[in-house]
Amino acid sequence: MSIARIGILTISDRASRGEYEDKGGPAIHAWFKRVLTSQWEAVAKVIPDEQPLVEAAICELSDVQGCCLIVTTGGTGPALRDVTPEATETVCSKMMPGFGELMRAASLKFVPTAILSRQTAGIRGKSLIVNLPGKPSAIDDCLNAVFPAVPYCIDLIGGPYLETDPDQCKVFRPAHAQSKP
Amino acid sequence: MSIARIGILTISDRASRGEYEDKGGPAIHAWFKRVLTSQWEAVAKVIPDEQPLVEAAICELSDVQGCCLIVTTGGTGPALRDVTPEATETVCSKMMPGFGELMRAASLKFVPTAILSRQTAGIRGKSLIVNLPGKPSAIDDCLNAVFPAVPYCIDLIGGPYLETDPDQCKVFRPAHAQSKP
Amino acid sequence: MSIARIGILTISDRASRGEYEDKGGPAIHAWFKRVLTSQWEAVAKVIPDEQPLVEAAICELSDVQGCCLIVTTGGTGPALRDVTPEATETVCSKMMPGFGELMRAASLKFVPTAILSRQTAGIRGKSLIVNLPGKPSAIDDCLNAVFPAVPYCIDLIGGPYLETDPDQCKVFRPAHAQSKP
Repeated sequence: MSIARIGILTISDRASRGEYEDKGGPAIHAWFKRVLTSQWEAVAKVIPDEQPLVEAAICELSDVQGCCLIVTTGGTGPALRDVTPEATETVCSKMMPGFGELMRAASLKFVPTAILSRQTAGIRGKSLIVNLPGKPSAIDDCLNAVFPAVPYCIDLIGGPYLETDPDQCKVFRPAHAQSKP
Repeated sequence: MSIARIGILTISDRASRGEYEDKGGPAIHAWFKRVLTSQWEAVAKVIPDEQPLVEAAICELSDVQGCCLIVTTGGTGPALRDVTPEATETVCSKMMPGFGELMRAASLKFVPTAILSRQTAGIRGKSLIVNLPGKPSAIDDCLNAVFPAVPYCIDLIGGPYLETDPDQCKVFRPAHAQSKP
Repeated sequence: MSIARIGILTISDRASRGEYEDKGGPAIHAWFKRVLTSQWEAVAKVIPDEQPLVEAAICELSDVQGCCLIVTTGGTGPALRDVTPEATETVCSKMMPGFGELMRAASLKFVPTAILSRQTAGIRGKSLIVNLPGKPSAIDDCLNAVFPAVPYCIDLIGGPYLETDPDQCKVFRPAHAQSKP
């Protein structure tokens, strides 16, 4: 059985220079560790908010590292240096607007500034790329909202069969996709 | 009075090869038959998931067949062969993001994987194009959600005046548009 | 302290020819007058629904007039002459999809035709551009929905510190941004 590789990409000028401890990446790692029961391993990177570097990092995690899922943290706001959604869109062949819509709707229950997040998601080859916020508490809210649909999405693009602890996160697959291949 | 022509476009590799019975197209036809009270006729086609063929079929239904409304079924997921939203966007001059948002929100009440649908809608000339899911039950949920706004949209782009059985689907038009021209 | 300049751009063929009284622009002005407590001044324009003119007007309000916020009214529907979202997207470097999503969701509580609005928002330089509907009552609904996030957005793009009467509109800023610079 193939081990699922998950790319965790922290996009932050300050974290990449070591001026600031990366909290987003470890928060994502802790969420997957708590939720996933099938075998997986993380491929983590920390890079600055430079669009060509973000694009190159996503491509490497997808094309070379073979990650079925790549989650980013940071760089989704309106500020000049926030370029994560543009980089994501550039390297994806298909966009998945439902992810950003649901993550913003979920975050709106907590803060009205959720609409400032430009998070998106898309497909590159056999990888699903999902932008998450920078703040650890918002990361959990967003993963809780969208992850129930992620394993079936990865099935559909030809990736490994992800399984979760249903007490932590209930995954949904249609009846015909519920037995492990 | 002009009869409204409605294009019903099934996009499915298997249905187009006859390996699979087209269920989406007939489900859409049955919905309109039950709901519309003004005169209409269907122009139905079944084609494979090839982006140039999808684009050509939408253009023909709009430009040659004069359909005021073209609904597609199938090809909106994340898989490699799913290209319906890209084809739709390519041939439309205006996109209508509110349709996809509302259809996903409506489907989310039933399944968390609703966010995997990339359905969209747009305008080409005097035609409104709306992507529906492939599954008949999801087709009904989506039409029930968005159709109340469709007749007024068709008014605004210069199409025929559609009317429905209000017990089946309550259409909304602003006061100034409520009397038939 | 710098006075915040707010561009109010009415986009309407009939209003620009004087055949129709501009109601959208004054409704926006009245909303800001009632809500804002920090110093501001309006820069108002009325132009026809011509995409190059809309683009030029947004650029002038941003680049020359130095508006931190530019709100448009009109031109967001599906009709042939409605080109405001396309003009907005052309001149913005970043799109903010959460604004359109929330404005449509807010308007959907009142009318099912809210999904016909193609309103969007984006960033150009140090300006936030937000498309509002044409109808005065819908303008208020949309501003009430999105404005709580606007001052923090303007902080993030380097603009002046906007303040409101909390009885009229409660603005949200994260803890670290709550004291005036």
